[in-house]
Amino acid sequence: MSRNENLDAIFNPNSVAIAGVAAGKIGQAFLDCLLDSGYKGNIYPLNPKGGEISGLKVYAGIKQVPEPVDYVISCIPASSAPRLIEDCVAKGVKVVSFFTAGFSEIEHPEGQALEADMLRAASAGGLRILGPNCLGVYRPQVGLSFASDFPKENGRVAFICQSGGHGGAILDMGRARGIRFSKIVSYGNGCDLDSPDFLEYFAIDPETKIIAVYLEGVREGQRFFKIIKEVSKKKPVILWKGGRTEAGIQVAASHTGALAGARDIWSIALKQAGVIEVGSLEELADTILAFQNLWRLRGGRVAIVSGLLGGGGGLSVAAADTCSASGLDVPSFADEVREQLQALLPARGSIFRNPVDVSQAELKVGILAEVLPILDNDPKTDLIVIIERADLILKRFSREEQNTLNSLFVEFAKSGRKPIVVVSLTWSSIVGQLEMERELSEAQIAVYPTLQRAAQAISNVVHYWDRTEGDSGC
Amino acid sequence: MSRNENLDAIFNPNSVAIAGVAAGKIGQAFLDCLLDSGYKGNIYPLNPKGGEISGLKVYAGIKQVPEPVDYVISCIPASSAPRLIEDCVAKGVKVVSFFTAGFSEIEHPEGQALEADMLRAASAGGLRILGPNCLGVYRPQVGLSFASDFPKENGRVAFICQSGGHGGAILDMGRARGIRFSKIVSYGNGCDLDSPDFLEYFAIDPETKIIAVYLEGVREGQRFFKIIKEVSKKKPVILWKGGRTEAGIQVAASHTGALAGARDIWSIALKQAGVIEVGSLEELADTILAFQNLWRLRGGRVAIVSGLLGGGGGLSVAAADTCSASGLDVPSFADEVREQLQALLPARGSIFRNPVDVSQAELKVGILAEVLPILDNDPKTDLIVIIERADLILKRFSREEQNTLNSLFVEFAKSGRKPIVVVSLTWSSIVGQLEMERELSEAQIAVYPTLQRAAQAISNVVHYWDRTEGDSGC
Repeated sequence: MSRNENLDAIFNPNSVAIAGVAAGKIGQAFLDCLLDSGYKGNIYPLNPKGGEISGLKVYAGIKQVPEPVDYVISCIPASSAPRLIEDCVAKGVKVVSFFTAGFSEIEHPEGQALEADMLRAASAGGLRILGPNCLGVYRPQVGLSFASDFPKENGRVAFICQSGGHGGAILDMGRARGIRFSKIVSYGNGCDLDSPDFLEYFAIDPETKIIAVYLEGVREGQRFFKIIKEVSKKKPVILWKGGRTEAGIQVAASHTGALAGARDIWSIALKQAGVIEVGSLEELADTILAFQNLWRLRGGRVAIVSGLLGGGGGLSVAAADTCSASGLDVPSFADEVREQLQALLPARGSIFRNPVDVSQAELKVGILAEVLPILDNDPKTDLIVIIERADLILKRFSREEQNTLNSLFVEFAKSGRKPIVVVSLTWSSIVGQLEMERELSEAQIAVYPTLQRAAQAISNVVHYWDRTEGDSGC
Repeated sequence: MSRNENLDAIFNPNSVAIAGVAAGKIGQAFLDCLLDSGYKGNIYPLNPKGGEISGLKVYAGIKQVPEPVDYVISCIPASSAPRLIEDCVAKGVKVVSFFTAGFSEIEHPEGQALEADMLRAASAGGLRILGPNCLGVYRPQVGLSFASDFPKENGRVAFICQSGGHGGAILDMGRARGIRFSKIVSYGNGCDLDSPDFLEYFAIDPETKIIAVYLEGVREGQRFFKIIKEVSKKKPVILWKGGRTEAGIQVAASHTGALAGARDIWSIALKQAGVIEVGSLEELADTILAFQNLWRLRGGRVAIVSGLLGGGGGLSVAAADTCSASGLDVPSFADEVREQLQALLPARGSIFRNPVDVSQAELKVGILAEVLPILDNDPKTDLIVIIERADLILKRFSREEQNTLNSLFVEFAKSGRKPIVVVSLTWSSIVGQLEMERELSEAQIAVYPTLQRAAQAISNVVHYWDRTEGDSGC
C-alpha cells in the first residue's frame, strides 16, 4: 500500500484555511478549536468582508492568502461550494473538507446534482474533497480537532467515522475509560475520499495500531472489501455498520445519503474479510478497549473471580454462562489450583471450580492478593476476569480499603502477569464510581459495566487473532 | 389452581421461630432483619443455651415455644437438621426454611443423603421444606425480609429466585429504577417446595401482576412446563435460566445442586409455554421495568426522538437499527406529522422521518414540549422513546433547565397520552445522573442506560401480548 499524500495534507497540514468565518458562527468555532487545541501551523480565516477574528487577520478569499495552503475547511453555504472549489484548484490546495451540508443527503434532487458538479470540478483540478456534511479531522498530536474539549492526549486507535456525532461520542466514552486516539476522521457523505482511502492510510500509519470504523455505506464495494481484507491482516479492524435494518437504511439515506445495502451480505463479507463486526457504539468502544489493554492476549480461556461483595453462587453461574455464550472457554481450574483455593477459602458456600467465588470471604479485601497469584499460575487459563459490585464497594468499604483494592489490581497488572479485566457492576448508587474506575483505566486495566459487554469484547479480540494467525499461516 | 396453604405460612406467617440464634451470627441477622422490617407477628429465637437476644427471650427449642408456630427459619448446622425436622413435625410447624447449607450442592455424597433423609422425614410428618441453602422470603407488606436494608415499599412483581444473591441484586437494581416487589422467595436447592409451587401461588396472588423467575433447574420437568404454560396465560412470566452452557451447568451444580439441562431444549419449551426468556439479570430487570411501567402497551410501533444533546444523524441511524433488530417497528411518521415537524425544526441537519432528530434545536429544552404532542397524535406509532445524553445534560444544562426537561417528561407521562420511555445515555461523567433518573422513575417512566437494553425490554413486552392474545383467541 502506498502513502496517500493528500491524506498527509489533512492529517499533517502545513497550514489551514477556514472558509466562511464569521463571529459567533460555526466557522469561528472551527477556528477557535484549532487555537485551543494547539495547532502549530498558520491558520487563515476567510471571509469576503475581511477584518479580524479571534486575533487573526481575515482574508477575503483563498487567493489572497500569502503562502501555499494544504487544507481548507469550508463552512460556506452549499450553493457557493463550486466557486470555492474553483479557487482552491487555482491555489493548489490539496484537500477541502466541507462541514457544509445540503448535498446528496437531502431529499431534493438539487443536492445530488450539486455534489456531482463539485466532485467533477475538484477531480479535474487534482483537488480532493473530504465530506461534504462532515466534521473533519481530529489529531491531538498536531492540534487538529473539531471540538475544543476533546482530549489532548495521543493514542494508538484510528477511527474512520462517517458520522461526526459518533466521533464525538466515542471520544467522550474513551475519555472516561482510558481509550485514546491517534486520529479520527469524520467524512460525512464521502463523495470523494471514502473509507477505503482511510483504511489504506491507517494500515501503514505508524501511530495507529487499531483501526475502528463506523460507516453507513461505501461507493465502491469491491474496492472496499478488497482493501479491508488486506488491512485486517495487518491490524485489527473493528467495524460498526449503520443502516443494518430497513428502518436504519432509510435514516442513513437522510443522514449521509448512503445506500446502505442488505445486512446479511455485509456481515458475511466482513467476516470473510477478517473484520471484527460490532453492533453498537458501546460494543465498538468495548472492543477497542479490549484490544488496547489486552494486546498480548491470544487465548480465550478465562479464569473468573466472582463474589467480591454481593453475588455469590448465582453470579458465578451467570459469569460462566455469559463467557461461554460469547465464545470464551471457562475450563475447570487445574487440580493444584483448586487445592490451593480450597486451603484458602471457607469450605461452605464457596465455589472453587471456575469461577472462584470469594463471597464467603467478602469482607477481607486482601483475599484477592492471595487468590490472584494462585490463578496466575494456572496453566489452563489465559486471563483473569474479576467481577465486583462497585456500588457495594463504595457503600461498605472505607476509602482506604477501596484504595487497597484498586492498588492490588494496578500492581498485579503492572507486574506483567496474566492480563486482568474488571467488571464493575453498578446496580444501585453510582456516585463516586467513576473515580474508582478511572484509577484502573489509567493503569490500562479494561473496565466494563456488565458481564455481557466484557465477555463480548474479549471474545472479539480472541477470535480476531484466531482467524488472523490462521490466515498468516497460509 | 388452588391456594397452597403452606405457602400462606411462609408469606403470611402468624409467628416465626429462628433456630440457631447466637449473638453476632447469621441467626441474629435474620432476627434483627424481621425487627427492622416491622414484622408484626411473634418472633421466637431458639438456642439450647436460652437467655435473651435483641431484646427477645430465647427458647431452648421449638417445643418450648408457648404458641403454635407456622414458619421456622433454620440457621443450625446441616448435621442437626434431621433433629429439627422431627421437632417441627411434632410441633405442627407448616414450613421450615433452611438457610443451612451443606446438602446436595456439595461434592461429598453425604450432602445428598442428608437432604434425602430430611425430605423423607418432613414429608411423612406433613411438613414442607424451603431450601435448603436459601435466604427465604421477602414480603415488605408484612415485614418479612432477608436483609435489613431492603426496600419497605410494596410492589406488584413477584420474584421466584433460586439464588438469594440475585434476589438481593434485583432489589438493589429495582430500588434505583423504581421496580418494587410484592414478594421474593429464595429457595436454594429446592428439595421440596420448588418453582412450580410458587408459580401456582403467584398466579392467583392478588398482590402480584408480574412474575419473574430465576432458576438453575427443576425436579419435575413435566409438571413445571405444564404449570408455567398455564400461569403465562394469566400473568406475564419473565424467566432467566442459570446454567445455559456447559460451564454454567457445572457451576450451577456446585451452587444449588441443580441438574441444569440443555439450553436449546429449555428455550424451545419456554417459548412454547409463552414464557418470556431473558439472558441476564440486567435484561430481567429491564423487562420487569417495561411491564411495570408500560402495562398498557400492546403495539411495538416506536416513535423515536433523538439528538437531545449529542448524537444527531448517527445516533438516529443506530436508534432505528437497534429497535428494528429487537423486533420493534420504526415506521415513517404520518405525512401530517412530518409536515408539523418540518415547520418546527431547522431544515438543515434535522431528520423528520422517524427518528425525529432534534439535534439542530439542541440548546432549547422546550422544543420537546412541542415535539411530543405532535408525535402523540401520530396514528402510526404506539409509544415514544426519547434518547438523551444524560452526561451532557448534566454538563451543559442549568439545574433549572434539567428540572424543566424532567417535568416535561413527568407531565406528559401523567397526562395519559402515549407511553414514553427514556434512554439515558451516559458516556462520560455520571455524577448526579441518578438523581435525575430517580425523578423519572418515581413518575413511573421507564429509564434505560442503553438503546439496546431499552429496545429488547420493550420488545419482550410487546411480543408477550402478541402471543398471549393469540392464545386467548383460541
